[in-house]
Amino acid sequence: MTEFGFIDQIIQMCNSLPTNGCEGIGDDCAVIPIGGGEVLLFTQDMLIERVHFLREATSAYDLGRKSLAVNLSDVAAMGATPVATLLSLSIPKELMGEWIEAFMSGYRDMSEEYGVALIGGDTTASKGDLAINVTAIGRVTQERIKRRRDARVGDIVVVTGELGGSGRGLEDILRGEYNTTSALVHKLPTPRVMEGQFLSKYSGVHAMMDISDGVASDLKHILKASSVGAEIDLNSIPAYFVVEPSEGDLQRALCSGEDYELLFTVAADEFYSISESYREQFGQPLYPIGKIVAGDRIMWMRDGILQCGDFSGFSHY
Amino acid sequence: MTEFGFIDQIIQMCNSLPTNGCEGIGDDCAVIPIGGGEVLLFTQDMLIERVHFLREATSAYDLGRKSLAVNLSDVAAMGATPVATLLSLSIPKELMGEWIEAFMSGYRDMSEEYGVALIGGDTTASKGDLAINVTAIGRVTQERIKRRRDARVGDIVVVTGELGGSGRGLEDILRGEYNTTSALVHKLPTPRVMEGQFLSKYSGVHAMMDISDGVASDLKHILKASSVGAEIDLNSIPAYFVVEPSEGDLQRALCSGEDYELLFTVAADEFYSISESYREQFGQPLYPIGKIVAGDRIMWMRDGILQCGDFSGFSHY
Repeated sequence: MTEFGFIDQIIQMCNSLPTNGCEGIGDDCAVIPIGGGEVLLFTQDMLIERVHFLREATSAYDLGRKSLAVNLSDVAAMGATPVATLLSLSIPKELMGEWIEAFMSGYRDMSEEYGVALIGGDTTASKGDLAINVTAIGRVTQERIKRRRDARVGDIVVVTGELGGSGRGLEDILRGEYNTTSALVHKLPTPRVMEGQFLSKYSGVHAMMDISDGVASDLKHILKASSVGAEIDLNSIPAYFVVEPSEGDLQRALCSGEDYELLFTVAADEFYSISESYREQFGQPLYPIGKIVAGDRIMWMRDGILQCGDFSGFSHY
Repeated sequence: MTEFGFIDQIIQMCNSLPTNGCEGIGDDCAVIPIGGGEVLLFTQDMLIERVHFLREATSAYDLGRKSLAVNLSDVAAMGATPVATLLSLSIPKELMGEWIEAFMSGYRDMSEEYGVALIGGDTTASKGDLAINVTAIGRVTQERIKRRRDARVGDIVVVTGELGGSGRGLEDILRGEYNTTSALVHKLPTPRVMEGQFLSKYSGVHAMMDISDGVASDLKHILKASSVGAEIDLNSIPAYFVVEPSEGDLQRALCSGEDYELLFTVAADEFYSISESYREQFGQPLYPIGKIVAGDRIMWMRDGILQCGDFSGFSHY
């Protein structure tokens, strides 16, 4: 069973439960309305040794930063401001002391950079691997939330940065090369928090999420939630660090995980002005990669011609 | 370093972080005010195989229930209504399928009994132990929150049930006797949710928390947070299932973990009427075990005489 298959099963098993006014599973964050036109958003990620990281390939400090970054990315993906986190750690005995202090320094420094409080959690021993769980809480007004379900036919599909760098870094790490430029991209992702808040101001930005499993996989969530299809132009994919991407580069850009860029759809007639303001604010371009069409799948286009085959996204299982 | 030593260190390292209006580490739950005189409460517990449970000693279904129960207990401890949870699982391959479905059934059934929504989480592979992380969210009005810091000199110290049953069950389990009555108490704790909500109605109930590490350890948190001491009467400790407790029974009642009863302090002149209403509502007595006094420590009394020595609470490390 894949991770997504299991999540679908959980949703089905739990459909008798009350919602208590919450919006649950199915977006980057869960949503609880709190009155005054505002909501709190909740997301939770678990990082497990030997599944999400190799202890020997990362510094404790960098891992502390990354543990927070991947959660801030989910908050950013819905256009919210991160407010607070809870951190739980299951710690093998040999990591108590210096190692875990360095981890906490990384976590603290990234919390400071993004103005986020640490309000709770749990610490416990582990008799095996290190396990890290972070819950991040964000805040945003009802009218600015960006969900997966709001893509509209005619929208332009956009990403906020180059794709595949983290995947390339993971390949390096698995080869034992822990300190290449790409390996650093993999180990120190930048959550697009300010970018998400910027985009949330525009009502023309419709659906949004972060890219954690690769566009080929993640875009499908937007399409399914919005009941639309997409035409994606392979010539427009901003592959990490390559001007003329090979098939391998393209595959990596679309299917490798953990880029943590934002993926969003925007009304075609607003894209230009938003893109200009974005470049002014962040000194970076936005990358249009295709458009939303009627249908229920991704059509991959090259030089204007529909390609056969599919790309399948990154999966932990 | 003990768990509490490490938490103190985290608090110190993170004291430069903003609070963003949240009340953080130091109570059973963190608190975020949401307007309208209400707050949301947050608690998070991590359960790790071979540290908190043995896979061979528990059914998957029971473990699903317990994972939620221990978190609901923290919400109950502050007098709140549990609203929603996030659940993250790191699952060894051999548990995918039937085992994890049974776990989810237990989690779902307990959610249903307490009217709690499941709004998100994470699922991932594990290459070692099973790791479970639950975040519970509760809701309560500002005026009904019960904290650790509000005990007052003259208060009566009270517990909601017999103590040491779970500890005795753990001893059975560690001897390989997985299905004794006490083992079931250990594996299927009842969070005192309705009891916590009942007690939160009374302004005469001052400080409250749940007993997860044993009264001898947990009461110290109330004393420290409230800057008070306590006289605890060893003759009054309701030891699980024993009329005349031996020293061993008493040690277990005070120092073994995971009873998940509530521990609270109440104005002396209100105790009788609250106790009567409580018995009427729940068919169970409240157990007064001592009183709050000036000072900063626990004085253990027997037959009115101060005892030497100390009891130290349960610690995972």
